[in-house]
Amino acid sequence: MSTNKEHKKILKGINPAFARGATRSVKPVLDMDVLAQEIIAGNHTALSKGITLVESTVLKHQEQGQLLIEKCLAHSNQSIRIGITGVPGVGKSTFIESFGSYLTELGKKVAVLAVDPSSSLSHGSILGDKTRMADLSQDKNAFIRPSASGNSLGGVARKTREAIILCEAAGFDTIIIETVGVGQSETVVHSMVDFFLLLKLAGAGDELQGIKRGIIEMADAIVINKADGENEKPARLAKAAFAKALHLYPPKDSNWAPKVNTCSAIEHKGISDIWALIMSYKELTQENGYFTTKRHEQNTYWLLQTIENSLKENFYRDPNVKERLPILLDQLSKNRISPFIAAQELLAIKKK
Amino acid sequence: MSTNKEHKKILKGINPAFARGATRSVKPVLDMDVLAQEIIAGNHTALSKGITLVESTVLKHQEQGQLLIEKCLAHSNQSIRIGITGVPGVGKSTFIESFGSYLTELGKKVAVLAVDPSSSLSHGSILGDKTRMADLSQDKNAFIRPSASGNSLGGVARKTREAIILCEAAGFDTIIIETVGVGQSETVVHSMVDFFLLLKLAGAGDELQGIKRGIIEMADAIVINKADGENEKPARLAKAAFAKALHLYPPKDSNWAPKVNTCSAIEHKGISDIWALIMSYKELTQENGYFTTKRHEQNTYWLLQTIENSLKENFYRDPNVKERLPILLDQLSKNRISPFIAAQELLAIKKK
Repeated sequence: MSTNKEHKKILKGINPAFARGATRSVKPVLDMDVLAQEIIAGNHTALSKGITLVESTVLKHQEQGQLLIEKCLAHSNQSIRIGITGVPGVGKSTFIESFGSYLTELGKKVAVLAVDPSSSLSHGSILGDKTRMADLSQDKNAFIRPSASGNSLGGVARKTREAIILCEAAGFDTIIIETVGVGQSETVVHSMVDFFLLLKLAGAGDELQGIKRGIIEMADAIVINKADGENEKPARLAKAAFAKALHLYPPKDSNWAPKVNTCSAIEHKGISDIWALIMSYKELTQENGYFTTKRHEQNTYWLLQTIENSLKENFYRDPNVKERLPILLDQLSKNRISPFIAAQELLAIKKK
Repeated sequence: MSTNKEHKKILKGINPAFARGATRSVKPVLDMDVLAQEIIAGNHTALSKGITLVESTVLKHQEQGQLLIEKCLAHSNQSIRIGITGVPGVGKSTFIESFGSYLTELGKKVAVLAVDPSSSLSHGSILGDKTRMADLSQDKNAFIRPSASGNSLGGVARKTREAIILCEAAGFDTIIIETVGVGQSETVVHSMVDFFLLLKLAGAGDELQGIKRGIIEMADAIVINKADGENEKPARLAKAAFAKALHLYPPKDSNWAPKVNTCSAIEHKGISDIWALIMSYKELTQENGYFTTKRHEQNTYWLLQTIENSLKENFYRDPNVKERLPILLDQLSKNRISPFIAAQELLAIKKK
């Protein structure tokens, strides 16, 4: 089988044999060995190509991507994974730029990935765009990857989660996953990170109003950005309001009491404090075992979730089901059929 | 096919032909017609038998149960469905006894069902037990049914949801579904009721501590029970604390602002106020259309949920999957395999 154009693009620059155009005689297994070695050696170009394989919709590439993941697994898992969410306009890019640059100055290696369901639909990425983080994208200890595209949030999430493994294998010790509050994206990001940070702006009192359900309970820290100039006082007031509100929430399984901080990403103020609190979270949860427990639970969650998504996709893709479902939904809305009878009919149709 | 013992028990007293012992010659279709007529006529014994059919684990009875549901559907949907939750000791039985008796005095017909995952496991029911509600169970306008048993919360929930249809067909205009805060039972009950009530006791400040995640966001009302004697003042303080806390939550899709009330179920104080607030909820949501929208959404949810549960059960029941899953989970916990590769292996095993 000859290597197609996308395949060539992926392998170009990784394996010398491919660069010479000898695409036919090289076995994929060998390629993946080479690619894995390059990734583990910290080659950013190899990492990019690896992620492209994992994100590919071409079956062959997906298979190679899985092989690559397998080879990289033993070198992964040694990082802190930080989720960052906040509505557009809150200053996520500026925050990540400032926060990431602070970390690379500390000697950290920072990878920035994104889960962006809106870009999945439009096939255009708004998160993780390098032009948004001009300094960080120039930084040799940073790696910025735009959001994977895909037809479903689940698919995008899977690709992002696999990209985490590759980034870790490439030696990145701090993985930042950003998302914008669309659909279920926060929940998905929460299920793949160690620490979840909600970025906010100071508002006009009633600080929790307008925050999506459940998101407060997921947050390990709320950071009020743009605490500079005239905004400083409102930010302080917002901090107090959030701290009070958080106090009302039940304790977390991690035993971590969520913190509220202010910062000015543009003036690089308060950034080191945020890193300090993430480190104290890590210390606490590594000591009480929650850090490891949570990663295990996340792995199990992703295993079962992948199976269940696959079962569902397979079911709803069935032409008989596709034809009959809207009719039954209509009957259901008119109270002419019970949900259980409708379900049984669909399950029987699929079995045929 | 001759009718077995359980079958006979179910049909006894419903169809005169069965009472005479002529079990062989009567067609099931006819039985269900008779049973449905009896239920719709308001015969409590027929209703009990119908629910027993729906709850049965015998395939034949389940089929008859579905037929019965179909015949009763057109007569259902005309009620208010109220979910009541609270930890053991909060006085749920006393509350329902007092609340239910108040309603039957108003001329209402009240059915009390239960979703109790703990009883599903032990096959012993702790909720909906008639001995707990001595007065209400004697009331001819009340119907109390213990929690269905089953192997899974999903199964119990399905049975309860079908029992709601039968109760409504039997003319019950107020359906109370009680649950104890175990597992995901509140979420399940929330997905089958119009109004969700959380029963609480006055504590020592920090009122939201110890409440399960998400439950506050589900509640349409929080009622602080045992507001009598020395408890009256703490109950008032708790009411104020909850009211303040609720204010911090984002507004609900229903446009209903959750209320906090106090009551003494044992002294029958504050009971009428709770009914009044449920009625104002009903008025608001019927006016803004949310009442109907929510029921449609719940129906769709149950349709899809039933399908997905069935797909999952079918998958995890597979002997190959059963054998391989624990091995893969172990490898996963040792970071030797990625969740996606493990999922693919299991999906491939099942396909064989």
